[in-house]
Amino acid sequence: MNIFEELKPGLCGLDQLLALIGSGCRPPMAETLEFDLVEARDGNAVFAGIPSQRAYNFLDIVHGGYAATLLDSACGCAIYSKLSAVQAFVTLELKIAFHRALTRDTGLVRAEAQIVSFGRRVAYAEGRLVDGIGRLYASASVTALVFDRDAKPGSGSAGR
Amino acid sequence: MNIFEELKPGLCGLDQLLALIGSGCRPPMAETLEFDLVEARDGNAVFAGIPSQRAYNFLDIVHGGYAATLLDSACGCAIYSKLSAVQAFVTLELKIAFHRALTRDTGLVRAEAQIVSFGRRVAYAEGRLVDGIGRLYASASVTALVFDRDAKPGSGSAGR
Amino acid sequence: MNIFEELKPGLCGLDQLLALIGSGCRPPMAETLEFDLVEARDGNAVFAGIPSQRAYNFLDIVHGGYAATLLDSACGCAIYSKLSAVQAFVTLELKIAFHRALTRDTGLVRAEAQIVSFGRRVAYAEGRLVDGIGRLYASASVTALVFDRDAKPGSGSAGR
Amino acid sequence: MNIFEELKPGLCGLDQLLALIGSGCRPPMAETLEFDLVEARDGNAVFAGIPSQRAYNFLDIVHGGYAATLLDSACGCAIYSKLSAVQAFVTLELKIAFHRALTRDTGLVRAEAQIVSFGRRVAYAEGRLVDGIGRLYASASVTALVFDRDAKPGSGSAGR
Repeated sequence: MNIFEELKPGLCGLDQLLALIGSGCRPPMAETLEFDLVEARDGNAVFAGIPSQRAYNFLDIVHGGYAATLLDSACGCAIYSKLSAVQAFVTLELKIAFHRALTRDTGLVRAEAQIVSFGRRVAYAEGRLVDGIGRLYASASVTALVFDRDAKPGSGSAGR
Repeated sequence: MNIFEELKPGLCGLDQLLALIGSGCRPPMAETLEFDLVEARDGNAVFAGIPSQRAYNFLDIVHGGYAATLLDSACGCAIYSKLSAVQAFVTLELKIAFHRALTRDTGLVRAEAQIVSFGRRVAYAEGRLVDGIGRLYASASVTALVFDRDAKPGSGSAGR
Repeated sequence: MNIFEELKPGLCGLDQLLALIGSGCRPPMAETLEFDLVEARDGNAVFAGIPSQRAYNFLDIVHGGYAATLLDSACGCAIYSKLSAVQAFVTLELKIAFHRALTRDTGLVRAEAQIVSFGRRVAYAEGRLVDGIGRLYASASVTALVFDRDAKPGSGSAGR
Repeated sequence: MNIFEELKPGLCGLDQLLALIGSGCRPPMAETLEFDLVEARDGNAVFAGIPSQRAYNFLDIVHGGYAATLLDSACGCAIYSKLSAVQAFVTLELKIAFHRALTRDTGLVRAEAQIVSFGRRVAYAEGRLVDGIGRLYASASVTALVFDRDAKPGSGSAGR
């Protein structure tokens, strides 16, 4: 079963996300870094994972890229949940603030994201990475371009 | 051989980075996402990797977290290269702009970072992710806290 | 009456902000761009203003710097409200997302900010710029360095 | 003479900027905060000003909004310089890093910006605020939406 076959072109974004959750499939990066989309609602998405030794950097804590990956996923899917069946999006920029170090002892963390504003061409989302008792590890904000699928965002350099 | 044993407390940051390159060791996250520190000079660091299917997201392109991870590494090590033997740092925030999608066909990419300013307490770095012919995929800026190793940046909530 | 004489060294940050509100004084930039600190609580601050033609750019809308100024003020004062009488802070970075254009017809806007996390050395705040009926014009996040007043954050280049 | 009458619809962005420089006119915000567009080339723009007491905040240094305003202007005009006669843009987000405090003794500062990438729908620019001897006070990055003038970026909430 291939995750990319699970995505049905005729579904709106939220239904695609719900189908993804229902399938139990992980996209490759989610498999590589061991995290999952666990919730999707209109304008919201939550990813969860247990950071392990595999995500450690040479300073002996979890690499900042782990939090960035989960928050980018969550903010992107919060936007994706608002797309119609003919819309697509690309993330233009991501800012992450690191509030506390993740370690292999942190346990399950959730990247919870929600739409800030969603327009015809641009969407903004924000997210927070928290542990099981609500402690904040990282916060993020994302800007994304929204466009119709038949109007590809560009092929050349920075065609976005 | 453990990467964490390679880090010698008596060395300055740049010498630690050069020892890391010389050892051929990869920290765990670098092994997981398949990238390497390949250059370190005073105020500069370069990481390189070949993004593969393993870093794909459900949109069938390389996850933004891959670029975020390499650029966070490069900006962090550009700052690390300026540390004395008694200094440490933590990354406070990271902003990434995504200029072009990475795919499994992109080939080798380099995350090249340099110091923007380096003070007694705060350092700033910037980086760019480019392919073999210099095309730009992502750019990043980082803010970091610099402190003495014996003055830990805090243990509690947001102790940074 | 000089605003800088209103600031009493013996007061904590919140009491200084309350004294500033009580004095009715505007710091110079607030006079120049016509906005006021209108609320301060533990971890929160609100600035308000009515953007006028004086803040217009050459595209015939209010300059993005107006929203940046109010949100930088609000986030900074949210952090300031947490300082003890011997602490100070400097803003390290500010990110602003622009959701909607301000015009001379927008009327009163409020920049409402709150602490995200506050540690021994670093504080984070977030803010939103909204109009009288709650429409969102801009959102912001700030990273700041916190330090003791007798330990100046540096004198030389990027001494922060 | 009204600055908004100086903008000729038939000119490309760069020619509009050069006409603006040639006119000696200041848009209202530039008059209010006392700064000028002083250079424009293909993909580059420079604003200059002398920060004065009028831009001071209650901490007795120049308000961060001053640097934000000049850098937002410079990054925006670097993008504007790339527009054809039928294109327009809106700034989506701005990040500023503050490296050094501005004071009334700093003298003339220049906000120098350049395009990082420019596509059919999205453009990115970066800028630096430096004084007369090249010391760095602030650095910025901007994301902007590019669109055709006859296709307004939206009228409703976050219609961008």
